[in-house]
Amino acid sequence: MESLTAITLLTDFGLADTYVGVMKGVMLSRCPQARFVDLTHGIDAGDVGAAADHLETSWRYFPEGTVHLVVVDPGVGSARRAIAAEADGHRFIAPDNGVLGPTLQSASTASVVRIDRSDILLQPVSRTFHGRDIFAPAAAAAAAEASIHGLGPPIDDWIRLTMPAVRRDPDGSLEGEVIRVDRFGNLITNLREEDLPDRPRIQIKERAIHGTVDSYAAVAAGEFLSIIGSSGRLEVSINRGNARAALAAEVGERVWAIPQ
Amino acid sequence: MESLTAITLLTDFGLADTYVGVMKGVMLSRCPQARFVDLTHGIDAGDVGAAADHLETSWRYFPEGTVHLVVVDPGVGSARRAIAAEADGHRFIAPDNGVLGPTLQSASTASVVRIDRSDILLQPVSRTFHGRDIFAPAAAAAAAEASIHGLGPPIDDWIRLTMPAVRRDPDGSLEGEVIRVDRFGNLITNLREEDLPDRPRIQIKERAIHGTVDSYAAVAAGEFLSIIGSSGRLEVSINRGNARAALAAEVGERVWAIPQ
Amino acid sequence: MESLTAITLLTDFGLADTYVGVMKGVMLSRCPQARFVDLTHGIDAGDVGAAADHLETSWRYFPEGTVHLVVVDPGVGSARRAIAAEADGHRFIAPDNGVLGPTLQSASTASVVRIDRSDILLQPVSRTFHGRDIFAPAAAAAAAEASIHGLGPPIDDWIRLTMPAVRRDPDGSLEGEVIRVDRFGNLITNLREEDLPDRPRIQIKERAIHGTVDSYAAVAAGEFLSIIGSSGRLEVSINRGNARAALAAEVGERVWAIPQ
Repeated sequence: MESLTAITLLTDFGLADTYVGVMKGVMLSRCPQARFVDLTHGIDAGDVGAAADHLETSWRYFPEGTVHLVVVDPGVGSARRAIAAEADGHRFIAPDNGVLGPTLQSASTASVVRIDRSDILLQPVSRTFHGRDIFAPAAAAAAAEASIHGLGPPIDDWIRLTMPAVRRDPDGSLEGEVIRVDRFGNLITNLREEDLPDRPRIQIKERAIHGTVDSYAAVAAGEFLSIIGSSGRLEVSINRGNARAALAAEVGERVWAIPQ
Repeated sequence: MESLTAITLLTDFGLADTYVGVMKGVMLSRCPQARFVDLTHGIDAGDVGAAADHLETSWRYFPEGTVHLVVVDPGVGSARRAIAAEADGHRFIAPDNGVLGPTLQSASTASVVRIDRSDILLQPVSRTFHGRDIFAPAAAAAAAEASIHGLGPPIDDWIRLTMPAVRRDPDGSLEGEVIRVDRFGNLITNLREEDLPDRPRIQIKERAIHGTVDSYAAVAAGEFLSIIGSSGRLEVSINRGNARAALAAEVGERVWAIPQ
Repeated sequence: MESLTAITLLTDFGLADTYVGVMKGVMLSRCPQARFVDLTHGIDAGDVGAAADHLETSWRYFPEGTVHLVVVDPGVGSARRAIAAEADGHRFIAPDNGVLGPTLQSASTASVVRIDRSDILLQPVSRTFHGRDIFAPAAAAAAAEASIHGLGPPIDDWIRLTMPAVRRDPDGSLEGEVIRVDRFGNLITNLREEDLPDRPRIQIKERAIHGTVDSYAAVAAGEFLSIIGSSGRLEVSINRGNARAALAAEVGERVWAIPQ
């Protein structure tokens, strides 16, 4: 038996339907040594930016040789291309809508091909479920073959994605925003640890937080804190509480880090 | 090591409890070469019809030899039988409540046995969790053995399930209904592509849609459309929107396809 | 290829984020023969007691040699210890907050070590995601090595957890409580079958139920019943209905079993 190849899945399909299971069935039919790891299927419908961010903060924790299949595809059935990429020993299959942008831009080497191997598609290709008919077969081929380069011709004009920018004010303040809220109500910002001023005052809505702490437990239960989270970015949290609910803050809320 | 055998799971157990994990533990204990693929655990509690439809549109995407375990079992603990089936090279384990009906009726060959092998059950069999004590052990046996015929005697009177019928009016109109709503708010009907009149007018509630399109992007964002979905049935959707919410339509809503 | 080792996961991370997938990536990178089974990721945030109960009713259904990884960790980043345990041929990795308590106390043999192997941690260890940086690496090591005893020194003062007690009144009545509510609205109590009086009257809120039944179907649809559930404890249910909703009862609701 050949060794197993990991295929991760990242979609906006949810878990109430059988879409994800069917994609796995297609891949197993073509690549029996595949093993699947779900990254998440809970991306908001069509939210390419959130999917791009989740992928970029996750993929390096998998072994080299992993195939990452991303199907967040609001343009299904339109002229958008399907692409395969190779970067730092990992492989990626996705629609060409920017969802791979931050990942490929963070890699030291990246090459991209346009998938045009009609012989691998599930025929007839449906109008609404390219995850099953195009992307899953391409991921199975990427897992089974030595390289993505058999899947189609190289391209350079794949779509990059502009993530929300951080602005630096003349006084040294940083202005960023909440880019994700997790299950615990932690507000994850785009302010990176290495860019922060020393002992910053963090301002979000009417709330000011002085400095960052090293653990949630550094403040009393119910108190606000700011902390460098697991992806190296500033997060605003409440120890054993829910900052999202307490602040009524969502993705896009402005956050400032101000020198003191 | 033997090669891996895929076992799919389709239940109404949800994911907040450990019921699904425990069934996998039971199967792994008896069939170490099992590998699991979740179809969905999000079936509404006891909705045998929805489970039957999900199975029938999913099973053929898996390789031959796959075991499909279905536990949507509102009659747990009553006299309803447990059955195993073989159809077109796939195997199935389920309560005899009709949930396998559409699948077996769509297969070119099907045989069914009543599971009566008390030696494989998890003892003592509980009153409330036959998924763990009867169906998971039977699925493990079906995966490990050469045939389902060791599991019990053949039967012919397994329960069929009547899916909602499509009515054809004298003027050539088809009257069907919404049989499923997916996560994106797409309204999936029981009107099949091959039965539709040419360029039909689709009517649902106060909304009329003229003809079907080849992709969501064929209409502007926010516009209604009808399209042949991934299981070959007519769907009513909104490009980058949610038709369920916009129409306040649910499963059972009537839909007409009217010749023009 | 070595044979596969099962690793179960039980967390409060939910499935909307990629936390669970990333932990699996870390484990696959270090233990390619790992195979994962999700127990549940739907524990309420920080609810150590619920996680402890779910683990204790689930772990014995897995084969010996299974590694059970539990990350419900409201004290992440504080001084709480990380522990590994071996009990009846199973292995466990968790924070030392009591979550393993009922499981280890139910085993015939149990030994516990404090994890102090800094060489296996994912560096730098983050302040907020020890699931990824400490517990997943420890679980991979527990799966790959012959024993947990290489992970750190033995300890005896690991935290036990007091589960809600059952009180026996002088008249022979038992007073317990609802300790879990499942997806179907079944109210699972801490009253064990072996402690119940004969043909008890069950009282919860204003509702009295006479005796226990052998199946949901023993009463008409919509009727209340009490039954011994799959973990050997008394449950209050409605045949094809939802007892939680009908009684507006939640975890902690008092339940009496009264001799008649």
